[in-house]
Amino acid sequence: MAVIAVLGYGTVGSGVIEVMRSNKELIESKAEQPVNIKYVLDLRDFPGDPVQEIITHNYDDILNDSEVELVVEVMGGVDPAYSFVKSALLNGKSVCTSNKELVAAHGAELMRIAKDNNVNFLFEASVGGGIPIIRPINRSITSDKIEAVTGILNGTTNYMLTKMGTEGIDYDEVLKDAQEKGYAERNPAADVEGHDACRKIAILASLATEKTVRYEDIYTEGITNISTTDMLYAQKLGGKIKLLGKAGFENGRVWARVAPGVVSGSNPLSMVNDVFNAILLKGNMLGDVMFYGRGAGKLPTASAVVSDIVDAVRHKNINLGIKWSEDKQELMDIDDVVVSKLVRVEYSNKDKAISCVKRVFGTDNILELENAYDEFAFVTDKASEREIDMKLEELLNCDGINGILNTIRMEG
Amino acid sequence: MAVIAVLGYGTVGSGVIEVMRSNKELIESKAEQPVNIKYVLDLRDFPGDPVQEIITHNYDDILNDSEVELVVEVMGGVDPAYSFVKSALLNGKSVCTSNKELVAAHGAELMRIAKDNNVNFLFEASVGGGIPIIRPINRSITSDKIEAVTGILNGTTNYMLTKMGTEGIDYDEVLKDAQEKGYAERNPAADVEGHDACRKIAILASLATEKTVRYEDIYTEGITNISTTDMLYAQKLGGKIKLLGKAGFENGRVWARVAPGVVSGSNPLSMVNDVFNAILLKGNMLGDVMFYGRGAGKLPTASAVVSDIVDAVRHKNINLGIKWSEDKQELMDIDDVVVSKLVRVEYSNKDKAISCVKRVFGTDNILELENAYDEFAFVTDKASEREIDMKLEELLNCDGINGILNTIRMEG
Repeated sequence: MAVIAVLGYGTVGSGVIEVMRSNKELIESKAEQPVNIKYVLDLRDFPGDPVQEIITHNYDDILNDSEVELVVEVMGGVDPAYSFVKSALLNGKSVCTSNKELVAAHGAELMRIAKDNNVNFLFEASVGGGIPIIRPINRSITSDKIEAVTGILNGTTNYMLTKMGTEGIDYDEVLKDAQEKGYAERNPAADVEGHDACRKIAILASLATEKTVRYEDIYTEGITNISTTDMLYAQKLGGKIKLLGKAGFENGRVWARVAPGVVSGSNPLSMVNDVFNAILLKGNMLGDVMFYGRGAGKLPTASAVVSDIVDAVRHKNINLGIKWSEDKQELMDIDDVVVSKLVRVEYSNKDKAISCVKRVFGTDNILELENAYDEFAFVTDKASEREIDMKLEELLNCDGINGILNTIRMEG
Repeated sequence: MAVIAVLGYGTVGSGVIEVMRSNKELIESKAEQPVNIKYVLDLRDFPGDPVQEIITHNYDDILNDSEVELVVEVMGGVDPAYSFVKSALLNGKSVCTSNKELVAAHGAELMRIAKDNNVNFLFEASVGGGIPIIRPINRSITSDKIEAVTGILNGTTNYMLTKMGTEGIDYDEVLKDAQEKGYAERNPAADVEGHDACRKIAILASLATEKTVRYEDIYTEGITNISTTDMLYAQKLGGKIKLLGKAGFENGRVWARVAPGVVSGSNPLSMVNDVFNAILLKGNMLGDVMFYGRGAGKLPTASAVVSDIVDAVRHKNINLGIKWSEDKQELMDIDDVVVSKLVRVEYSNKDKAISCVKRVFGTDNILELENAYDEFAFVTDKASEREIDMKLEELLNCDGINGILNTIRMEG
């Protein structure tokens, strides 16, 4: 029998209890033994809830109970999760977590401590919610060099962008709707400014490089500047605007960014709508593979946590040997990364503006919208961000051009 | 060091050699040891090819070499693959295979023999080519009851249906094109009549039930009756026609079928085009998750085989405990399975035909195409196949109705 403890009885924690109860027989068959939740750590009490019987307010009860072989950390945030997890591992207990902040900030160190203590540190639910992605990268994509990882990693922003695109509703109103539906926090910064996606692409890029890609080093741009007008241009190009976490690994050079992108209709990421997430991997032999599912939500996330519980229980005292070292992975300067951009230009004189675009960017393929006045858009050729920025500066000096309304990377 | 032998130097076999050579360093790092291909079994010789040095024509060379710990079976077909694989397992050698016929026909028995001999029988490449799906089902979806599996499991037919849908080219011409491109065999029956997809859904359904779903028991309908007119009706409904392998597992009742279906635009399977495959799983906690990628092709398939090689080498003499017993899984009578169908009606008198449809099926939601004469279509409510068939019989007796041109299941 495996005895476990759950840290945190919030959304994911209560989901873990629910999944374990609903699918008890199946889970214990897969784990090849009974699995007993002995403690739930929470500051609060839950009178009337059956969980109250196993609630503890004192982490030491769990840490010092040698019966507990596995700690499930679903509190979120770096503190005190980090110290709880670290002490559990040092005490020879495996840890499963859904906590992307913790994994992005301390994953490599915790993995090393787990290995040193012959236990496991697993984190399937930290990226893509219920989507199996961490284990497939570690266990299935073992014969391929990963050349790129591109993900729709945040359900809240994907819901908002989908609604803006399909219903033509402005950003502010869509944000309000997402907040009312409980998809977005009252302070939505972590989602809409891309920080959540940034933690997740940092984790995926670290697994791909087997080194630590620091989330602080990743260029991160959110969706706050995206308008329904941008979306109409994207649609004119046969694409959709998505918030993408992306990392590239070709020719030994590594880069990563979070930014909105115009995803073409032929890219499978273009059909990932609403709160769904997806991760597209490009392998040098496999080509494209994509993993799609619910990137958040109580039960899908809890399901991923419980799949880690099954794995940890099956591999008691056998470290699964996930490769992710504490060595820092250097990233390319984002200005050196090659992109193509959709550029929206505001003009005072259309003909002059077009001829300027033609002179500077070499294109006269101009996109116009029916109901957008004094503006057009065009798509640049591929070039480094630096080179494109320089040319954009040049545009701004042209007669007939008032300004650049927005630029959005093309995803292909 | 792991010493392995490859049975068959055809498309997949030569792909395995190429993947092992191209990504040697990475693969040996994941396998945590050097991996040496000592033999390639083939009836032919390959003068000038470096593989010639390790070619053998005699399987006993491999079977009796105690150094060989792993046999990679990529010959295809049931004979002699079955006897080769069985004897390898009985001799304490693990086996990795891409052979869906073998796995569908003898998977459970071979798995038991592997377990009895403390080795592994792995078959990631047998379904979905390069898409990680077998290992995720066995290792990741361990906390969920799988309620349904729906897959686009055959690249050839998906290529053909995509081309018919987007270019309006007729079945016969598209088949010729697929044959010229090498996607379809000269005798295309295995693909276009659904037998290939049938083997694959049998494997997936067996893993989901942990019993043996016999492919012979699965109702199988191919794409030979699908026309571009059918596709226009599907498009009018906002959907696309796909060949689907599908199995359902709700309330302890199991059913499976292979048949074309009208997949709605909101279903992620609808955007799986060309030779790509995808498998959509529905878990009782997870909801929908989808795995997408290249379902065939030399390198993607070989990549999946090599991921099995890595797994087998890492788990020498540790049986991975895949649950799939030889007990036969009884299937529901296909006539009892509940569906909704798109029905195309040929009429001699339109008004009479419509009022008959309304009387028998209770719908006056009639679909008409601009360039299709003397016909319309409608979508039935959900009912058992038997009930729908009985009502279709009734339609045929109506005044004003000449015949039923086609019926296609709605997938939602």
